[in-house]
Amino acid sequence: MRFPRKTFFLSLSMLLLVVFLGGYANFGKATAQSANPLPSWNDGAAKKAIVDFVQATTTQGSSKFVPIEERIATFDQDGTLWVSHPMYTQVMYILESVPALVKAKPELVKVAPYSTVLEILKGDRAAVSKLTMPDLEKLAAATLTGMPVETFNAEVKKWLAEAKDPRWKKPYTELTYQPMQEVLKYLRASGYKTYIVTGGGQDFVRQYSEQVYGIPREQVVGTAGSTKYGYGKDGKPFLTKEPKLLLNDNNAGKPEGIHLMIGRRPYAAFGNSTGDQQMLEYTKAGDGARLSMLVLHDDAKREYAYGPAQGLPDTKVGTFTQALYIEAKKDGWVVISMKDDWKRIFGFEE
Amino acid sequence: MRFPRKTFFLSLSMLLLVVFLGGYANFGKATAQSANPLPSWNDGAAKKAIVDFVQATTTQGSSKFVPIEERIATFDQDGTLWVSHPMYTQVMYILESVPALVKAKPELVKVAPYSTVLEILKGDRAAVSKLTMPDLEKLAAATLTGMPVETFNAEVKKWLAEAKDPRWKKPYTELTYQPMQEVLKYLRASGYKTYIVTGGGQDFVRQYSEQVYGIPREQVVGTAGSTKYGYGKDGKPFLTKEPKLLLNDNNAGKPEGIHLMIGRRPYAAFGNSTGDQQMLEYTKAGDGARLSMLVLHDDAKREYAYGPAQGLPDTKVGTFTQALYIEAKKDGWVVISMKDDWKRIFGFEE
Repeated sequence: MRFPRKTFFLSLSMLLLVVFLGGYANFGKATAQSANPLPSWNDGAAKKAIVDFVQATTTQGSSKFVPIEERIATFDQDGTLWVSHPMYTQVMYILESVPALVKAKPELVKVAPYSTVLEILKGDRAAVSKLTMPDLEKLAAATLTGMPVETFNAEVKKWLAEAKDPRWKKPYTELTYQPMQEVLKYLRASGYKTYIVTGGGQDFVRQYSEQVYGIPREQVVGTAGSTKYGYGKDGKPFLTKEPKLLLNDNNAGKPEGIHLMIGRRPYAAFGNSTGDQQMLEYTKAGDGARLSMLVLHDDAKREYAYGPAQGLPDTKVGTFTQALYIEAKKDGWVVISMKDDWKRIFGFEE
Repeated sequence: MRFPRKTFFLSLSMLLLVVFLGGYANFGKATAQSANPLPSWNDGAAKKAIVDFVQATTTQGSSKFVPIEERIATFDQDGTLWVSHPMYTQVMYILESVPALVKAKPELVKVAPYSTVLEILKGDRAAVSKLTMPDLEKLAAATLTGMPVETFNAEVKKWLAEAKDPRWKKPYTELTYQPMQEVLKYLRASGYKTYIVTGGGQDFVRQYSEQVYGIPREQVVGTAGSTKYGYGKDGKPFLTKEPKLLLNDNNAGKPEGIHLMIGRRPYAAFGNSTGDQQMLEYTKAGDGARLSMLVLHDDAKREYAYGPAQGLPDTKVGTFTQALYIEAKKDGWVVISMKDDWKRIFGFEE
């Protein structure tokens, strides 16, 4: 079949038109995306600080331009990326691992703190706050160490698939903050490598970081114990989780952990409590544009309200002191009001 | 100006032709690249093992296909990626840092081991082997710790820019093995994330890994000390390098360090000495296709010859024992003969 010249010419023009319009359509789409990368944020100082930071550090020719290999952003997890009240999710894992532990070692059933935990699990789970720090350390050592790495990983994945938050009746992994998920995506789309820097267990968070936050396990820095290399009966090597602390990734441990695991000072850091103070200081002390932000939980209705900063109720879980609030205001960090800055909290909301 | 219809038609056709040919040209280029990704390797079992591994793990539908996020390859550095004889480059750094140290603290000039090093630097540098391990530890603590992280980084960069290997009269950073540089690039082009896993100092290697190997500093796992967070007189926070070992990234410390810093078992691992044994075992013990390779330095003419495996001269620097050679052959690791498998050693050769 041979097209008349005119038809052929027209079809070529159409083809080019499709190619060009397609290009423009994509261009339009990209522009639309970057025009509103944070749809769950209300307009205000917090949203503006994020957008201004990204534009300043990624615009070629800007005095604050940051080369792509140096674009590092770090995020605390508990209370910053997902719900951490009334109790940290990993503590719930530790408690809910006790029945299986006691089943395997029945001699523990009447021994504290295991017996205490069994009582707690029958009733008020928030009563975990009655456990002492030595109790919790004992429970953590018993449930998080002493097994091959692969066994631990499988146990955490199984628990995460079944466990539910008692208030929202949803898996813990769905209780992430939609506005922060948007910040993660926006930063990555702007060439930033996003890291979790958590006081929680590094191996624990690595089991879901990729699926839940799009953060690969090698970009999770957390409290970490040592492992021990050995050989099984079949001669195959494996690593056993040891009850020996290598990195306490809280407070000063956060910048120290960032140096150990990343080796670069972040350009942006996000936290919500005194445990994040040093990471935010360290970030902000770098030259050029640096962004340090704190989530303030001031929304008792949609999530929780705690401080004690700004007269909010005091708490032992994710404490945000007035001193931290004052340091933030003085040093140009930005405080995010959950109540005022976030249009919605969770991805599952309408 | 208005083109006659025929001219316009022709120019449109030309445009399309250019677009299509451009596409084909790029396609041809990509094919040519992957047809010979290892030009500095002679044909043989070693080259074939690498190419077969990449094809098996990256071909969609292959039973050994590895998802891209799991493609991790780890490389020892000294003796695997660059020259480490007669002495490790970082040890040369430690020795050559002693004069500045003594200048700052003149009371050390007659104190061993500093005085010993000053003597060595005047003459036979290989005589460093006369220093005891406690001597070397003392020198390492004095030259690698006690200063802010940024000071150390700047000192290493300055030294690397000036120091030269006495045999080749070239900067140490040029003494990387061209065949291994090709493996790094080939694996990255195949979706692998390449890591250095070195017994050398993590902070030391991070100063040049990006420029020399294309490996970003966050993908360097090495022997690491702790840092201490503190504040300067100006109130600005900074990290000081402490003489406290966190990770001895040798032997069993290599798989343990890989778990700590990466959290995934590598699919491919490369080493050259007994210090790499456990990393290669750990890699090979994973399921699916796994590649464990050892560089054997059997080329006294073009580089160095040492073992004592296969009757090569014995050495304390990068020892490759006959027991390691036997384990490699028994467990399906591949031994690379520098003499037979490498067409050229260095990038600067003709």
